[in-house]
Amino acid sequence: MSEYARRSVPEGIAAILKQEEMAGYLQGVRGELGRSPCVLLPKSTAEVAICVRHCAQFDVPFVPQSGNTGLVGASIPDETGRKAVLSLETLRGVFEIDLANRSLTVSAGFRLSEVNERLAEHGLFFPIDLGADPMIGGMIATNTGGSRFLRYGDVRQNVLGLKVVLNTPEADVLTLGSAVRKSNTGPDWKQNYIGTSGWYGVVTEATLNLEPVMKEQATAIVVPSSDEAMLGILQYLEARVGPLLSAFEFMSGSAMRHAFAHVTSLSNSFAGGVIPSNAILVELSRTTVSAPWDAPLDDVLQAVLMEVWSLENEPLKDAFFGRPEEIWALRHALSEGVKSAGPLIAFDLGFTRDQVIAFRASMVRSLPVEFPQIEICDFGHLGDGGLHFNLVKTDGPLSADYERKLRDWVITVAVEKFGASYSAEHGIGPKNLWYFQKYCDVTSAQLLKQTEVFVTHAS
Amino acid sequence: MSEYARRSVPEGIAAILKQEEMAGYLQGVRGELGRSPCVLLPKSTAEVAICVRHCAQFDVPFVPQSGNTGLVGASIPDETGRKAVLSLETLRGVFEIDLANRSLTVSAGFRLSEVNERLAEHGLFFPIDLGADPMIGGMIATNTGGSRFLRYGDVRQNVLGLKVVLNTPEADVLTLGSAVRKSNTGPDWKQNYIGTSGWYGVVTEATLNLEPVMKEQATAIVVPSSDEAMLGILQYLEARVGPLLSAFEFMSGSAMRHAFAHVTSLSNSFAGGVIPSNAILVELSRTTVSAPWDAPLDDVLQAVLMEVWSLENEPLKDAFFGRPEEIWALRHALSEGVKSAGPLIAFDLGFTRDQVIAFRASMVRSLPVEFPQIEICDFGHLGDGGLHFNLVKTDGPLSADYERKLRDWVITVAVEKFGASYSAEHGIGPKNLWYFQKYCDVTSAQLLKQTEVFVTHAS
Repeated sequence: MSEYARRSVPEGIAAILKQEEMAGYLQGVRGELGRSPCVLLPKSTAEVAICVRHCAQFDVPFVPQSGNTGLVGASIPDETGRKAVLSLETLRGVFEIDLANRSLTVSAGFRLSEVNERLAEHGLFFPIDLGADPMIGGMIATNTGGSRFLRYGDVRQNVLGLKVVLNTPEADVLTLGSAVRKSNTGPDWKQNYIGTSGWYGVVTEATLNLEPVMKEQATAIVVPSSDEAMLGILQYLEARVGPLLSAFEFMSGSAMRHAFAHVTSLSNSFAGGVIPSNAILVELSRTTVSAPWDAPLDDVLQAVLMEVWSLENEPLKDAFFGRPEEIWALRHALSEGVKSAGPLIAFDLGFTRDQVIAFRASMVRSLPVEFPQIEICDFGHLGDGGLHFNLVKTDGPLSADYERKLRDWVITVAVEKFGASYSAEHGIGPKNLWYFQKYCDVTSAQLLKQTEVFVTHAS
Repeated sequence: MSEYARRSVPEGIAAILKQEEMAGYLQGVRGELGRSPCVLLPKSTAEVAICVRHCAQFDVPFVPQSGNTGLVGASIPDETGRKAVLSLETLRGVFEIDLANRSLTVSAGFRLSEVNERLAEHGLFFPIDLGADPMIGGMIATNTGGSRFLRYGDVRQNVLGLKVVLNTPEADVLTLGSAVRKSNTGPDWKQNYIGTSGWYGVVTEATLNLEPVMKEQATAIVVPSSDEAMLGILQYLEARVGPLLSAFEFMSGSAMRHAFAHVTSLSNSFAGGVIPSNAILVELSRTTVSAPWDAPLDDVLQAVLMEVWSLENEPLKDAFFGRPEEIWALRHALSEGVKSAGPLIAFDLGFTRDQVIAFRASMVRSLPVEFPQIEICDFGHLGDGGLHFNLVKTDGPLSADYERKLRDWVITVAVEKFGASYSAEHGIGPKNLWYFQKYCDVTSAQLLKQTEVFVTHAS
């Protein structure tokens, strides 16, 4: 063990110093590898503050890590081996439900699944629906969105209060906001610690808005007659059953093909087993127990899709219904399916809703010309403009140079022609740092500079 | 006209310099009076930047003003006569609806009512429901909430993007956020200009989330068997008809009495005309046109209140139904009614939901002991914990000293014993500056100091 590693750990703080016990903390979910002198395991906000102060004093940069499920490399240390990992997984002291207020105060180290399991007996949940199972701290640091954004919004819209250890030599502890929903007594400082990857401070505790769990769901796979028809179907459903609509997920034919090939247990209910060029997962749901005045949701979904079916411009080509588990199984198999198809270049783009369609159309036209080896295997949250624009290289290994060129080309078109966000819900991280620097306008850069903080682990 | 006044106006910017034409800009809605050398009337973001730069250069402090409907004195200049009024009412150049995205980009000088009138033909509205008719700029500067917060949230939750002129000598123009709903590419700077009264910059344009207008409403006045029963009724309604619930407004008996006395056209439908000690306005509403699968909302409201009626703990004493205009007429008459009853000391408090009830109970007990001349005439948004805690002095004029003592006492109890926000939705302003300074914690104060901006018109 190096002298540097020993020096990195403040007295009284638990830590992992043996390299062989550190592996899980050094590898990201997309295979990125980092090195670190130590993993710090603080058990409370006060211990986090001790760690941050100590790191400042002994000139040890650090990277906060909670569930280590992030997709942009922000949760692992870099390759220098100088950065300590400040793990939040041992922050588990606080779990206080306020039923009347529908809020929860919780330590950053709880996983989303754990939180929702504990809330289930009260019929409540934290309404961010993700494929991964991150911890609360990381969810706040990345401001995750997910599949039910169109009903519940993102993490930002569901955070009422935060406890933060400032990323300064003094490591002041701030309590920002509270379970009180209506308060306008100055700047809402907590916003600066949401979606900023621990840049300004480490979130150790949060007060969250809770929502009633879904009691009834109805799901269908809808095949639109064209890409352009998708938006019309969305708008029609919003007009007719908007408040019941809890998911409207676009899936490309190629992504579905790879999912079926990879997850052989998936049942294929498309007419004749032929996978269409695109499809939409539609979900209606109720958060109230079925009441005498409620029509069964399956009936409502059938009736409203019948209406769409008979629209003059014929936006709907086909549709089939199924139990939610079955229908969502296809959606949830897309990521793995696409990954198994070949080297993956993944983009997490955000658009206004009509620009999602326009961007896809443009890519279908121009990508085969510029990059003939690439297959588009995208899917996304059309209801909120989020597009997981996944590309697979079909002819063997991917060089760093090729990837960089492809990445630059796609992001340039998306951002400059279609007004996209180059990171809809995954954050910045090393993966997006270059684009952050490119597209951060001059005045924002000034604002960033004015905030005097460590930026050693920026993102 | 003074040399100072002439010097306050940048070349090429329209302005009012005659004192007799300025009156409407110098008086707040609660009667506060200020003085000013001039009212600047910029017509665009660029002209606002010219004004801000000019004011910095010639050392003229200024106060941004939009609809001048604020309740904390933040929209008018002080009594020194040195502050220019920077009116936003002439910012009217932009009004761009994106129907597919359900968003609107609009200049700060449009009134809420105008915005909603123009949106009506598209079946959309900006979902902040207020008694007053402010302009968009001021709504953002105060982060208003209103009566339908429990469904739509506050202004912050409905702002997608902002154009801001920084309150610095350079007066940089920032474009922050956009109509893209999902974007996590660094700090969400726009948050710093929402609810901060123009402190850091002047909002000149905003991109707003729009919601479908209500197509069907059902309303009732509900008389709970006790104060404590109110929260139970709210929770029962949320469990049974949560997504349909769009208002749950508490009204105290005394506030209602003054409303009936003052607005004689109000019809009194309480049993025997006897006003109860408190009542709740309940509204269910749908944003979709009635469909074959929808039960009429009037039937739903009757059925669910019947269920509440038969609950074992008997939370419901009485209820009557009425057309929405009639039912809301009582709620909307409360403010005027209370104002007519005598000198008013108004508080805009925010609590967690159960603490609203606890605080009221405490006040009903202790206020008559401490301040026997005071009648509690409160009402509020129980669904989101907001309480307009209005007090009326029943024995003649109100001295500044008495008001200060009363104000301090109430706010101390609310904040320190019941964890309240002393300004739920009205902002800081001169009226709350003292409490801001008292309750702003040390580290927040440091954060405030670090942001190098003019604070001459702070709040």
